[in-house]
Amino acid sequence: MIIVQKYGGTSVGSVELIKRAADRIIACKAQGHEVAVVVSAMGLETDRLVDLAQAIQARPDPREMDVLLAAGEQVSIALVAMALKERGCNARSYLADQVPIHTEAVHSRARITHVETERLRADLAAGIVPVVAGFQGVDAHGNVTTLGRGGSDTTAVAIAVALGAAECQILSDVAGVYTTDPRLVPEAQLVQRVSFEEMLELASQGSKILQIRAVEFAAKHRMPLRVMSSAGGSDGTLIADDEGMEAPLVSGVAFNGDEAEILVTGVPHDPGAGYRILQPVSDANIEVDMIVLTAADAGRMDVSFTVHRNDYHSALERVREAMKAHPECEVEGNDRVVKISVIGVGMRSHAGIATRMFAALAREGINVRTVSTSEIKISVLVDEAHLQRGVVCLHEAFELAQPPEQRPLLPGRPVL
Amino acid sequence: MIIVQKYGGTSVGSVELIKRAADRIIACKAQGHEVAVVVSAMGLETDRLVDLAQAIQARPDPREMDVLLAAGEQVSIALVAMALKERGCNARSYLADQVPIHTEAVHSRARITHVETERLRADLAAGIVPVVAGFQGVDAHGNVTTLGRGGSDTTAVAIAVALGAAECQILSDVAGVYTTDPRLVPEAQLVQRVSFEEMLELASQGSKILQIRAVEFAAKHRMPLRVMSSAGGSDGTLIADDEGMEAPLVSGVAFNGDEAEILVTGVPHDPGAGYRILQPVSDANIEVDMIVLTAADAGRMDVSFTVHRNDYHSALERVREAMKAHPECEVEGNDRVVKISVIGVGMRSHAGIATRMFAALAREGINVRTVSTSEIKISVLVDEAHLQRGVVCLHEAFELAQPPEQRPLLPGRPVL
Repeated sequence: MIIVQKYGGTSVGSVELIKRAADRIIACKAQGHEVAVVVSAMGLETDRLVDLAQAIQARPDPREMDVLLAAGEQVSIALVAMALKERGCNARSYLADQVPIHTEAVHSRARITHVETERLRADLAAGIVPVVAGFQGVDAHGNVTTLGRGGSDTTAVAIAVALGAAECQILSDVAGVYTTDPRLVPEAQLVQRVSFEEMLELASQGSKILQIRAVEFAAKHRMPLRVMSSAGGSDGTLIADDEGMEAPLVSGVAFNGDEAEILVTGVPHDPGAGYRILQPVSDANIEVDMIVLTAADAGRMDVSFTVHRNDYHSALERVREAMKAHPECEVEGNDRVVKISVIGVGMRSHAGIATRMFAALAREGINVRTVSTSEIKISVLVDEAHLQRGVVCLHEAFELAQPPEQRPLLPGRPVL
Repeated sequence: MIIVQKYGGTSVGSVELIKRAADRIIACKAQGHEVAVVVSAMGLETDRLVDLAQAIQARPDPREMDVLLAAGEQVSIALVAMALKERGCNARSYLADQVPIHTEAVHSRARITHVETERLRADLAAGIVPVVAGFQGVDAHGNVTTLGRGGSDTTAVAIAVALGAAECQILSDVAGVYTTDPRLVPEAQLVQRVSFEEMLELASQGSKILQIRAVEFAAKHRMPLRVMSSAGGSDGTLIADDEGMEAPLVSGVAFNGDEAEILVTGVPHDPGAGYRILQPVSDANIEVDMIVLTAADAGRMDVSFTVHRNDYHSALERVREAMKAHPECEVEGNDRVVKISVIGVGMRSHAGIATRMFAALAREGINVRTVSTSEIKISVLVDEAHLQRGVVCLHEAFELAQPPEQRPLLPGRPVL
């Protein structure tokens, strides 16, 4: 079985950690697998390089920035290959242009177009562990490109897909996906398995475990991803296709503490209303998250949306400016709100989930300001002060501290 | 005119130094030249990378070591290109495989086989400064190779030759070639011009300004080299073809303080004698420098040679072992000796130089242990205690503190 293992910056941040990573790679190989490895730059190396660049050029040239940053992974792959060889495991490092990993001719956020596998396959067949530089690529002109934030995860998935690997393992200082943040709820449980869809929601809900892009890439190619700790100790969380009846109703409670809400009331109810309010915000490249439109009374409606807290003042100002032509509308803002989401493939078409969720929040006296739903998640916007109590009560309401098979059936859940 | 400028590690060792290097490159371009730049790794970066490797692998894998070390220049070229762009000068960085600079398929000391110039020429024609990574190359299989010590100088000369440059400038913290070490003789003068042959002798006599390999390469292709300070202030020293009658008789006094001498006396005078003594030393990969054979009395001779002081004990032991079969021979050693050399193309076939040299040393009461000569140098081995006085008296004897044209004619010098 071919396994691709990706070691993040915190897993190769020192000589000791590199040696530990080598031990893990060898352990995986000892289980009879063919192992290809993808490595990020050592811990703080990228920050050091960015600081150097910014000391020289206020807005560093994108092409040269990619050349600079790519040096970070170059160091890691050589050291990991050395550590493997020191342990008697044959290994060979690969820069992106040696694989090659082809990308678009774009700097700082290129997309992978094609991964050649001839050299990697030859190594695997010969018992050699190829150690590939993550995050970087090469364009059609031979220029160094980089893939942007979380790029090494994407490299790992792309190589796993190209090699037809059985699994792509992401090793970092995180043990896996939890039912919610263990710092907030000590009873939070490691989730053994989630679907791609759930992971996408978790990633977009503020979970820092995996970049959403790598999850999308894996989902598109149905490549099983496993998130696990490079320190060992558990099998982590497998992110794979939904297995239907085995999936628990609700997998976890996610939250995002950096939300800010903007509410416009008394908006004339015509087709251009939403556009008039949101256009000036998106023109400023501000990302909009939850959008809710509610018809208040005849011909009038309320429009509410959330933005990242950093963009709050800019967004509020732009909406106020745009609404000057409509003095009948009122514009209000609140940057002390948080979003809490209940996520799970099992909840598709189950109104019972929302009922249980609102009941739990109501018992705690937590007022829900806004609700938004997708196929596999329900998000509520609440006052910042209610973050911890909200997460804890939802975690309890869905009995997430129990193993999935011990969680009681909920009303409305189809019994198969 | 095409000029290749090479900036060494001490010239790009910090953000401030990189900015200064960019100013110098732009100043050279402002004089109407087309400038291509070669850059080494930042100051202590190579040491840092070597330390990391050695912490992981006792004897680091040569292929991976080359990948690791090449990351050093990768950082420098990106930063220098950024500094040029920040000053409005268009620039583009090149890794060795982007030029490409082809080398043999050998690690840690590959030789350049061929430099492609298409991209560099296109840049120069478009007013773009190409900034090339020194020290590294790419082999026929796409592997990263490195050129070994002083490799960046060699890269610069190779690119200058390939581009048909007018001059290859080596910028470092050294202002140029001096008549002798200014730390020993404050009157030492910067030499404006020396021949390739003289520079080869200077380089091999312990001068740390240029690696002998880069000088040989430049000499072979008659590429004028200029050694100058990256801080500016003078035109440095031009190393170029001997201009015949303009060359001064003696250009400088070099010395090497790390010598150790081994003397074998009473050796039977037969064809295999030298071989029997030196073979065990060269078998141990110990480099032998001065070798002198003198017929002492009928059928017997003395053999003396020098090695680097670090190899002294090992060499002495090996010779003693080899001479056990010849109890009539005595083996002595002395690791407190130094070599002083007088160098100059003007001295070819001038016995007067040696006379003047021995006279000066005799006046100071300095005993000469061994003499060896080449076409353009005379070297003497003396006790370590006499190093400073020896260098000073020779510097005075040949009036090297005077400008070349003011130095008096010596007996035996042909008046043209």
